[in-house]
Amino acid sequence: MLGIGVVGYGYWGPNLVRNFMEVDGSQVITVCDLRGERLAEAKRRYPSLHITREYRDLLDNPAIDAIAIATPVSTHFPLAMAALRAGKHVLVEKPLAASSEEAEQMIEAAEQRGLVLMVDHTFIYTGAVRKIKELIDNNSLGQLYYYDSVRINLGLFQHDINVLWDLAVHDLSIMDFIVQAQPSAVSCTGMAHVRNQPENVAYLTCFFDHNFIAHFHVNWLAPAKIRQTIIGGDRRMIVYDDLEPSEKVKVYDKGITLNGNPDSVYQLLVNYRSGDMWAPQLDRTEALRTEALHFIECVNTGQTPLTNGFVGARVVRILEAASQSLAQRGRPVELREGWLTQA
Amino acid sequence: MLGIGVVGYGYWGPNLVRNFMEVDGSQVITVCDLRGERLAEAKRRYPSLHITREYRDLLDNPAIDAIAIATPVSTHFPLAMAALRAGKHVLVEKPLAASSEEAEQMIEAAEQRGLVLMVDHTFIYTGAVRKIKELIDNNSLGQLYYYDSVRINLGLFQHDINVLWDLAVHDLSIMDFIVQAQPSAVSCTGMAHVRNQPENVAYLTCFFDHNFIAHFHVNWLAPAKIRQTIIGGDRRMIVYDDLEPSEKVKVYDKGITLNGNPDSVYQLLVNYRSGDMWAPQLDRTEALRTEALHFIECVNTGQTPLTNGFVGARVVRILEAASQSLAQRGRPVELREGWLTQA
Amino acid sequence: MLGIGVVGYGYWGPNLVRNFMEVDGSQVITVCDLRGERLAEAKRRYPSLHITREYRDLLDNPAIDAIAIATPVSTHFPLAMAALRAGKHVLVEKPLAASSEEAEQMIEAAEQRGLVLMVDHTFIYTGAVRKIKELIDNNSLGQLYYYDSVRINLGLFQHDINVLWDLAVHDLSIMDFIVQAQPSAVSCTGMAHVRNQPENVAYLTCFFDHNFIAHFHVNWLAPAKIRQTIIGGDRRMIVYDDLEPSEKVKVYDKGITLNGNPDSVYQLLVNYRSGDMWAPQLDRTEALRTEALHFIECVNTGQTPLTNGFVGARVVRILEAASQSLAQRGRPVELREGWLTQA
Amino acid sequence: MLGIGVVGYGYWGPNLVRNFMEVDGSQVITVCDLRGERLAEAKRRYPSLHITREYRDLLDNPAIDAIAIATPVSTHFPLAMAALRAGKHVLVEKPLAASSEEAEQMIEAAEQRGLVLMVDHTFIYTGAVRKIKELIDNNSLGQLYYYDSVRINLGLFQHDINVLWDLAVHDLSIMDFIVQAQPSAVSCTGMAHVRNQPENVAYLTCFFDHNFIAHFHVNWLAPAKIRQTIIGGDRRMIVYDDLEPSEKVKVYDKGITLNGNPDSVYQLLVNYRSGDMWAPQLDRTEALRTEALHFIECVNTGQTPLTNGFVGARVVRILEAASQSLAQRGRPVELREGWLTQA
Repeated sequence: MLGIGVVGYGYWGPNLVRNFMEVDGSQVITVCDLRGERLAEAKRRYPSLHITREYRDLLDNPAIDAIAIATPVSTHFPLAMAALRAGKHVLVEKPLAASSEEAEQMIEAAEQRGLVLMVDHTFIYTGAVRKIKELIDNNSLGQLYYYDSVRINLGLFQHDINVLWDLAVHDLSIMDFIVQAQPSAVSCTGMAHVRNQPENVAYLTCFFDHNFIAHFHVNWLAPAKIRQTIIGGDRRMIVYDDLEPSEKVKVYDKGITLNGNPDSVYQLLVNYRSGDMWAPQLDRTEALRTEALHFIECVNTGQTPLTNGFVGARVVRILEAASQSLAQRGRPVELREGWLTQA
Repeated sequence: MLGIGVVGYGYWGPNLVRNFMEVDGSQVITVCDLRGERLAEAKRRYPSLHITREYRDLLDNPAIDAIAIATPVSTHFPLAMAALRAGKHVLVEKPLAASSEEAEQMIEAAEQRGLVLMVDHTFIYTGAVRKIKELIDNNSLGQLYYYDSVRINLGLFQHDINVLWDLAVHDLSIMDFIVQAQPSAVSCTGMAHVRNQPENVAYLTCFFDHNFIAHFHVNWLAPAKIRQTIIGGDRRMIVYDDLEPSEKVKVYDKGITLNGNPDSVYQLLVNYRSGDMWAPQLDRTEALRTEALHFIECVNTGQTPLTNGFVGARVVRILEAASQSLAQRGRPVELREGWLTQA
Repeated sequence: MLGIGVVGYGYWGPNLVRNFMEVDGSQVITVCDLRGERLAEAKRRYPSLHITREYRDLLDNPAIDAIAIATPVSTHFPLAMAALRAGKHVLVEKPLAASSEEAEQMIEAAEQRGLVLMVDHTFIYTGAVRKIKELIDNNSLGQLYYYDSVRINLGLFQHDINVLWDLAVHDLSIMDFIVQAQPSAVSCTGMAHVRNQPENVAYLTCFFDHNFIAHFHVNWLAPAKIRQTIIGGDRRMIVYDDLEPSEKVKVYDKGITLNGNPDSVYQLLVNYRSGDMWAPQLDRTEALRTEALHFIECVNTGQTPLTNGFVGARVVRILEAASQSLAQRGRPVELREGWLTQA
Repeated sequence: MLGIGVVGYGYWGPNLVRNFMEVDGSQVITVCDLRGERLAEAKRRYPSLHITREYRDLLDNPAIDAIAIATPVSTHFPLAMAALRAGKHVLVEKPLAASSEEAEQMIEAAEQRGLVLMVDHTFIYTGAVRKIKELIDNNSLGQLYYYDSVRINLGLFQHDINVLWDLAVHDLSIMDFIVQAQPSAVSCTGMAHVRNQPENVAYLTCFFDHNFIAHFHVNWLAPAKIRQTIIGGDRRMIVYDDLEPSEKVKVYDKGITLNGNPDSVYQLLVNYRSGDMWAPQLDRTEALRTEALHFIECVNTGQTPLTNGFVGARVVRILEAASQSLAQRGRPVELREGWLTQA
C-alpha cells in the first residue's frame, strides 16, 4: 500500500486525492496547502486525512512514499527537489517545471536516488489518445503530414505563466506521445490583451527534420470552448474532438493520390480519395485513475513511467523555445539536440 | 445596359455569367476560354451568347463595356491591363494580381483612364460579413482583440499558387473590410506535402500597431470542411461559421472585466462575464448578385467600388509578405507603409 | 431517344426538366403549365423547348413518349389517366394519387396498355437510402425493432393536402422500400393551427404483424429544420440525418443482449453493448438523375420500376388510413389486406 | 435545522444526500437501504451518517423531520404513507405514485396532518425550464401551438415500469409546469421489444380543450442520446436541448402570419416570418440544490411546494391514461375532470 502525500488542494488536487483514495494500492495520508479553507474542505470530504500547512510534514513522514505536486508551476522545482532529496517518489502536475534546466536537475536527482519522477500529462492516459496512438503505431494513417490542435475557451487567466504553459502543454504532451519525433525548431506568435499579464492567445508552429508540421492554437479569451485536433496522414486522417460526448475520435478514409509525373509541376495530377468514416469505441476509464495505477506500478516495479521526466522535459523545452519566439514575433528558434531522449 | 465580356469559364466563370445575365442593368455578350468544351457548355446553357477563344474579340467589341476576369492568377495582370488599355471597366477574380507591383500598375492604369477596377472579394457582399461589419462599426464588440479564422477542407490543389493565395485571400479580404486597419508585419509558417507543389497548409499571423492580432489557418488537405472565424472584442465576441445553414453569425455577450490594481501582476483580478448569445437574421441574397449590381452601379455612376484596386492590392501585399515569411519558417516580415490607402 | 412532356413547372417541375434534358436517352419536348410566367421562365432557360397551356398538346404529340406530372395532388389522377389513355408512359410526382381508389385505377390502366407507371419517390434513389437498404438486406442490423423519422421545418403550408400527404409521404416511401413489410394498422394524431386549413403537424404510428413499430413526425411550423431517421435493430442501429453535409448515414454497433431467464421479469438481465460507429461513403449522384435513367430504362426494356404503381398505392393507402385515424384522435385504423402487392 | 432521512441509496439517493448535506437549513441524519454494500458506500462518503436497513428507524427517530424517498415506484405509496402517518414531511422521487388512486390518498394524508408532500420533478428547478416558463408567462411566445419532446437513449431497462413512467414523466412534469393546462385526452402507442418486459419505446399525444397539442417520444433502445423539446407559439418558438453545454434554450423569432380571407381555404395567404435567434443566459445552479432549498422553505413556512402532490398526481393521471391507450394501440382515452386542481 503506497502512502501518498498531496501538496496543493486547489483545482486539480482534489482529483488526485480522490483517485489515489479510490484505486487499489495507494492511500492518501496527508494533504498540504497554504490556505486553511482548502484544508478544511479536504477534511470535510475525507475525515480520515491528515491536513497541514507545512510541506515539511510530508517530507518527514515515513508513511508517505510518494508526493503528488499540484501547485503553481514556479513551485514545482523546489517542491519536487525537496521530495526527491527526502527519498520520496514524485508525481508533478504539468508542466514538469518552469524551465528545461530545472527539469534536467529533477531528472538527475531522481535517477541518482532510483526514484520515480513522473509528470501528470493526463491526456496520455485517456482512451481517446491511446486509441489514436494505436492507430498511428499500426500505420492506419500512413506517413504523418501534420498535427493541428485548437484548445480555446473563456478560461482562467493565470498570473505566472502564459497560455502556452497552461493549455498548449496538453497538446504538446499528446503530440510528443503519438508522433514519436521531436521538433527541430519552433515559431510562435501571440498577444497579451491585459496589461502586465502574460499572453492570453498564442499560435505555435513546430518544425521537424522531416516532411511534417505541427501547429497549436491556444486562447483564454474565446467565446466558445473548442478542443479539436486534426491529424493528417497520407492514408487516413483523424479528427479528435474532446468535447464530443461519444464519438471523440473519427477516422476518415480520405486523402490524395498522385498520378503523372511527380517532377513536373503541371503534369502531376492530384486526385482526391473519399471513403468511409469510422469512430472506434473508446475506453472510458477516467484518465487520472489509469494514471494513478500506472504511477503505483512504476513505484512498485521500478518500471519507467510512460510520462517520465524526459517526456516532461521535452515538452518544457518546446514551451521555452516557443516563449522565446513569441517575444520576437515568430522568429524561428532552433531546439538544441542531444539531451532530450533517455540514455 | 452594360455589356459584359467574361474571360475564363472554369469553376467561377459560370457564376459570373449567370449573375450578370440575371440582374437588371447588364448583359453578357461574349464568353472567352481556351477550352472548346467549356465554350460549348456555355453555349448550351445560353444559346444567345457569343463564344470565342480569342481574348482580342472582347477587347475589340464596342458592345462590351466591361470585362470580368476569372482565369488563373498569373494571367490577371496581362488580361486586366489589356482590358483597361482597350477602355473596358474590369472586375478581377481574387486575388487581384500575382504581386503588389502588378496590382499597383493596374490601379494606375485604371485611374489614368477613369475606369472602374474592382476585385471580386465575394465574401464582402454576403449578408453575414455585412452584418459583422455593422456590429463592429456600431461598437457592439467594443475594442477588437483578435481575429481568428480557419478555412480548411480536402480541396483542389492548385499548381500556380499556394494555399494562402487560394484560401487565405478570402479571410484577408474579410478582415481588411471589417477591421479597417492594416498589419504592420506578418509571420507565416506552412508546408508543401507534395513534392514540387506549392504549400498546401499554412498558418499566418498578422501584427498591427495596436493591441490586436489576426491569425489565418488554411489547408487543402483536411478531412473535414471548416469555415470558422472568431472575432474577440472587449465587450462581445463573434463566432461566424459559414457552414451553418441558418445561424451563421453568433454574437456572445461574454468577456472579461478587470478589477484591482492593473499595475500589479498579482493584485489584478480578471473576472469573467457570460451573458446571452444572439444570432441576428441575415440577408440571404446571393453575394455575387449584390456584387454584380454594385459593379454596374460603380460603372454607371463613377462611384468607387467597395472592393476597389487599393483593397485588392492591400490583400496581395499581405499575401506577398506571408509567402516571404513562410519561406523563412515564420521570420517576421515588415509591411512597407505609405501606398496602401487611396490618395 | 425518349420524348418527354412535363406538366407542371412550379417547384419540382424545373428539376424534372433539367434531369430529363441532361441524361442520355431522353429529351424534353414540351412543358405545360397554366401560368404564363412559368412557361416564359422555362423558355428562357431552354429556348429549344415547346411551351403550352394546353395539356392536350402533350397527349396529341406523337414525339412525346412519356409524361412527367408535377402538379397539385388532386390533379394527378385525371392527368395520369388521360396520359395513359393516350398511350404515354407516366411518371407521377408523390403522392401517386389523392386516394387508393384512384391509385388502383391508374395501375389497372397502365397494366392494360403495357405502359410504365412510376411514382416519383425521389428518396429511394439517393445514395443514403440505397446504402441503408443494402445494410438491412445483408442483415447488418439484425432483426428490425423500430423505424422513427422526424421531418419538420417552417415550411410551405399546402391548401389541398395536410402535412402527412406533403411530408410523411417521403418517409413512408423510404420505410416501404427498406422494411419490406406493410403495416396492419395505423394510429395518427395531429392538429391544424390555422383555421380552415389542413393539419400542419401530425404524428403517425404504423403497427405491423410482427414485433416492429414505425413512427413519423411531420410539422410545417417548426423553428428548426430536422430530417432525422433512426432505425433500430437487435444487432445494430442507424441514424440517418439528411442535413449532414457528409456523414448522412451513421451505423452504430450498439444494442442490448439478454441473459438469465427470459420468462421471468425479474431474472432477465438486459445488458448494453456499445461498439464502434461507422459512416459509410455514399454515392452522391443526384437522386433525380438516377431516377430519370431508371424510368427511361423501364420504358425501353419493359422492366417494372422500383417505385411502380403498387408502391405508390401502398403509400397512399397508409396516408388515407392515417387521415382517418387523425380525424378520430388516434383511434387505430386497420389496413385491409390483399391488393397491395403485385400479382 | 431540518433533519432528513433518505430511503433508497441507488442511482438518485446519493444526489439527495449530497444536496441536503450541503445546503444550509438541513442535515441528513440517516440513510436507509436494503443493500448492505450501498449503506457501506454511504458511510464511506459521510462517516457521520447513521445507516440502517430498517425503515422503521427513520419513522421512529424524532430528529428526523422529513423523509426523502428514492426507491422503486411501486414502493412510493407504502413508504410515503407510513412517513406521513409518522408525522414526517415527504419528498418523493418521480413519479409520485404507481396510480392516481395512490396519489390521491397521499395528498389527503398529507393535508389531514398539515404536512408537506412534494414530488421530485427535478427539471422544474433547472435554470432552463424556469427561463422557458418566464418566457411563456411574459407572452414572448404568444399563443402556444404545440409542445414536442424527444427523450431517447440506450438506457437502463426497468422491470417494474414502462418507458413512459421512467422517461416521459420528466417531460410531462415540464409541460404541466409551463403550459398551465391539463389534457382532456391522450393517445399513446409503443412496443416492448423484449419478451415479458415493459414497453421500451412509446409515443404519447396529449389533446387539450383548446388549439394546442403535445407529443412525447421516449425510447430506451436508441443509438444516440437526444433530449430535445420544441415549443411552438404564434409569436416565437423555442428549441430546448438539454445536452447543449451552453446554449440549452434557443428562442426563434419565427412563425407565420396570415393574410387574406381566413374563411376561404384558397384565399388565405400564409406568410413566413424569420427573424433573430436568441439564447438567454441561464442560471446554472444545480436543480436539486434549488429544489432542496425550496423543500426546506416549504416545511419551515407552510408554503405549498411548486411541485406539490396535486402536480405529481396530475402527471400520474396522464401516465395512467397513456398506459391504457398504449394497450389499445392508440385508442384515445379521456381524462376525467374535477379533482386535479387544488381546492
